[in-house]
Amino acid sequence: MNLPSKLIEEAVDQLSSIPGIGRKTALRHVLHLLQRSTGEVERFSNAFTRLRQEIKFCKQCKNLSDQELCNICINPNRNKQLVCIVEDLRDIMAIESTQQFQGVYHVLGGKISPMDGIGPNDINLETLPSRVEQDQVTEIILALSATMEGDTTSFYIYKKLKEYNLKLSSIARGVGIGDELEYTDEITLGRSILNRIPYESSLS
Amino acid sequence: MNLPSKLIEEAVDQLSSIPGIGRKTALRHVLHLLQRSTGEVERFSNAFTRLRQEIKFCKQCKNLSDQELCNICINPNRNKQLVCIVEDLRDIMAIESTQQFQGVYHVLGGKISPMDGIGPNDINLETLPSRVEQDQVTEIILALSATMEGDTTSFYIYKKLKEYNLKLSSIARGVGIGDELEYTDEITLGRSILNRIPYESSLS
Repeated sequence: MNLPSKLIEEAVDQLSSIPGIGRKTALRHVLHLLQRSTGEVERFSNAFTRLRQEIKFCKQCKNLSDQELCNICINPNRNKQLVCIVEDLRDIMAIESTQQFQGVYHVLGGKISPMDGIGPNDINLETLPSRVEQDQVTEIILALSATMEGDTTSFYIYKKLKEYNLKLSSIARGVGIGDELEYTDEITLGRSILNRIPYESSLS
Repeated sequence: MNLPSKLIEEAVDQLSSIPGIGRKTALRHVLHLLQRSTGEVERFSNAFTRLRQEIKFCKQCKNLSDQELCNICINPNRNKQLVCIVEDLRDIMAIESTQQFQGVYHVLGGKISPMDGIGPNDINLETLPSRVEQDQVTEIILALSATMEGDTTSFYIYKKLKEYNLKLSSIARGVGIGDELEYTDEITLGRSILNRIPYESSLS
């Protein structure tokens, strides 16, 4: 793409450096921004600079937060002995929207992925054993994606924590609510038959 | 979406204010930006502030440019008496990439669209007659989209310029190169039969 201006080129370069935004889309976005006032564009820019400079990671769970401790860790009604391990903020938001979890979180910030050069030391795992001891955690729920990387990470955590006296559970895998059996893949369906639950539990 | 941080919320708000970016996508982009260093994010932000503050509109054709005159208007090899009327920068880029046009442009910055409250005075039309006289323009090519708004704008320009002694042409409409006749819509195909050209011209 032969852009007539170095300024536009730099803006398009920056915007298209985000995965998922191509150069044509970026140019469309940039031309849209140019229709706004200088003040509005400054507010747009400042949002990112301020975010990067002022954002904090919660001291307890490493969730993104404006304060030292995030809203969930600071909430006295949350059960600190029940910890759910997730990959990032979006997983917390997904779980919170179900309103079915009253414990606290532990955010890994990634998954073990040897293919991408991400090992156990590159994610937030180091603080986990001390947290288990300090908060006298009774149950840990592994809520990672059911992918190769998610399973590897879950297994690593399982091996690291099995010496502790706590319940280690994983979120249930199975046929989604509203899904047709005939369209469910065989691995999921097979797993859901092996891990079948008493009918009464499925009613709640 | 219940975001845990006002800073993230502001960044997501700003990013999703661009048409075509939803809030979920914006959050994904924002979380990606948070993985970068402060310096990198500052460079990202500054690209937009600088762009808005320093971008100029070419004095001649109103194209976006870093200087007073754009690269095309400043080029002495361009024929100033042949003017192509386009809507915006992206159209110029599309035409330039064909390498078939050696004249200069006149950028409207929009199309007449009564539905959106855009009249002839809201786009860059005022300077057109004086430009025609000053540069002794011999031909004007209307290269606007073949939509209701594009056609309205073309017709308005035609009425405004028909008293001048110049050739007023429109880019050819017809069956695209490589298109199958059976899938071409009837209006395009009908037009391409009415406006048929000598076979020899189609060979060049």
